[in-house]
Amino acid sequence: MAIRPKKSLLNPNLFRPSALKSVPRSREPIWLDKNENLDSILMNLNHSILLELPLDAIATYPEAGETYRKLADYVGVEPESLILTPGSDGAIRYAFEAFVEPGDYVIHTSPTFAMYSVYCQMFGANAITIEYTRKEEKPYLDLNQIKDHLKKYKPKLLCLPNPDSPTGTIIASGELSEILNLCEQTGTVLLLDEAYFPFYDWTGVPWIKRSSNLVVARTFAKAWGLAGLRVGYAVAAPNTIDLFHKIRPMYEVNTLAVEFLSRALDREINMKESVIRIKDGKRFFEDKMRSFGFGVLQTEGNFTHVDFGRFGKSVHSTLFNKVYYRQAFEQPCLKGYSRFSVAPISVMKQVVELIEETVKAERV
Amino acid sequence: MAIRPKKSLLNPNLFRPSALKSVPRSREPIWLDKNENLDSILMNLNHSILLELPLDAIATYPEAGETYRKLADYVGVEPESLILTPGSDGAIRYAFEAFVEPGDYVIHTSPTFAMYSVYCQMFGANAITIEYTRKEEKPYLDLNQIKDHLKKYKPKLLCLPNPDSPTGTIIASGELSEILNLCEQTGTVLLLDEAYFPFYDWTGVPWIKRSSNLVVARTFAKAWGLAGLRVGYAVAAPNTIDLFHKIRPMYEVNTLAVEFLSRALDREINMKESVIRIKDGKRFFEDKMRSFGFGVLQTEGNFTHVDFGRFGKSVHSTLFNKVYYRQAFEQPCLKGYSRFSVAPISVMKQVVELIEETVKAERV
Repeated sequence: MAIRPKKSLLNPNLFRPSALKSVPRSREPIWLDKNENLDSILMNLNHSILLELPLDAIATYPEAGETYRKLADYVGVEPESLILTPGSDGAIRYAFEAFVEPGDYVIHTSPTFAMYSVYCQMFGANAITIEYTRKEEKPYLDLNQIKDHLKKYKPKLLCLPNPDSPTGTIIASGELSEILNLCEQTGTVLLLDEAYFPFYDWTGVPWIKRSSNLVVARTFAKAWGLAGLRVGYAVAAPNTIDLFHKIRPMYEVNTLAVEFLSRALDREINMKESVIRIKDGKRFFEDKMRSFGFGVLQTEGNFTHVDFGRFGKSVHSTLFNKVYYRQAFEQPCLKGYSRFSVAPISVMKQVVELIEETVKAERV
Repeated sequence: MAIRPKKSLLNPNLFRPSALKSVPRSREPIWLDKNENLDSILMNLNHSILLELPLDAIATYPEAGETYRKLADYVGVEPESLILTPGSDGAIRYAFEAFVEPGDYVIHTSPTFAMYSVYCQMFGANAITIEYTRKEEKPYLDLNQIKDHLKKYKPKLLCLPNPDSPTGTIIASGELSEILNLCEQTGTVLLLDEAYFPFYDWTGVPWIKRSSNLVVARTFAKAWGLAGLRVGYAVAAPNTIDLFHKIRPMYEVNTLAVEFLSRALDREINMKESVIRIKDGKRFFEDKMRSFGFGVLQTEGNFTHVDFGRFGKSVHSTLFNKVYYRQAFEQPCLKGYSRFSVAPISVMKQVVELIEETVKAERV
């Protein structure tokens, strides 16, 4: 008798990329392709924390109590409103795992973080996708469509990254508030994905006191420069967090991460100063791009979208093997744009110089 | 309308301990309570690997390809037969997640690793528990009962840690082979939990070529001294591993772990030498305990069970706040025994000296 996996896993569309087939990035080019924070000042400060960890951190099981209390201080909630997760991805997964059963409706945007669609398939959800369209040359999300679908389908979960990625767009807080009210009427969990906090520093966290329908997902991968730790957290009413603790693994995150974060949270200023450097780098880069006559989208993460217009081909050819970035998007809402993660001015300057040379050469 | 979690999460027996309530261990006592490998030679070697990691390991998303290839060499399988997981716990969870649906039968032993019962509840399984009984003063597992239950219930999953914990008992390979054959008839996945490999160095891994019903779970937490990394792996036929990749998170493990393991696997000898030191420490400790007239169970992990008999009270009082260990078990199969994780001779000597003093003082 053959072993029978869960039906949802037989879905042929549930495809995952293989680490065995992935080609690691070469060291030489500038890495602006994955929205990591590679600010060298922060990286060195973080590396020094790694060297300070107790000798036995690597050999012992984690004790996360102190880290929870420090994180609670930082986030501005009680520790009972928090759970550490493997990246914000882990927080998203817990929301699916706790609430979504086969056949349940889930609303998510598109394009967005790849795991929303993966989890819909994995948990056998009926995914309702709200596509970004293009309006005035920008990605546009129809909030009325979201509200209509909420009322019509009463989904278990509504996933709204704010800002969203790759679009970099946000939903105004007034609109979010209205959507949260609607979620209360429809019995829907609103999963607010704030992976880019505090590059975009508005947050829905205070609303967890007002509504047990809200789950906020965050990560240390972006602003904190800790993508290599794979730690994020969910913020929600204690009852919801209790559910997430029920479904967590033996230990929510590893000892290195727990010990590291306990120290990093004492030095929040390092992260904040890095965010300033990166925002400066973003402004510098975008101003330069505009000065060359290129289109720049307003985005709220640590990335930016540039439309090189007729210079596209030669810019891409110049940047090839010198800068890693996302050259093009298939989706109509971002057609023509290339995405660059942003870094401090010193790094963005190197990219600008390469682009500037190309522009000058082309104009001659 | 209230948000409604999955039914299985409303099970009041699904209890998880809270990190907020955990009291971290004090530094002074000797830590022999969690079956970690705190061998100081290995710990220092591992710490030196941590210091060698590239500066950007903490800031970048993982590339696990090379680590998979080295792990495949070490395990003796193709990389396609492996998935890295958060501890062996992660491998166990994937087996539940991929195969167990609400109402399905799952067989596991008791007492055993706590997560078997947790996952049964989390995934809504009908748990069939095979209790260790006591026979000739030792824990005894009735394999006929397992076989009968296999035939009767045709469970989705049969979980057999080998050796089991806390009992430290093993199932002979001939019996396991028979059980695997039976699993093929009943459509059952046999989850062989080899967390203590190579403290006990027989392995079922070669059988993944013979049967797609077999999943072997392993961890780097024990022999490799890396409990703080939270990394383990599952070994199975590529078709089963494919399923596990479908349900894995965005990245299976973090960058520090991936980069660390890639280097640690080049230095397998460090782990092997540590295992020898710990086995020496175990033999030394057990011989001493027997020479004092105490009962010692035969165990196959990095832990041992001692029955101090009438000296129990005074030994526990001497060791209090000097050694962390598990003083007593409620289960009849281990009643009267105290469990000590084992360490190299130099560490076990300190414990022996404390016990020896007590014994001498009592005998006077």
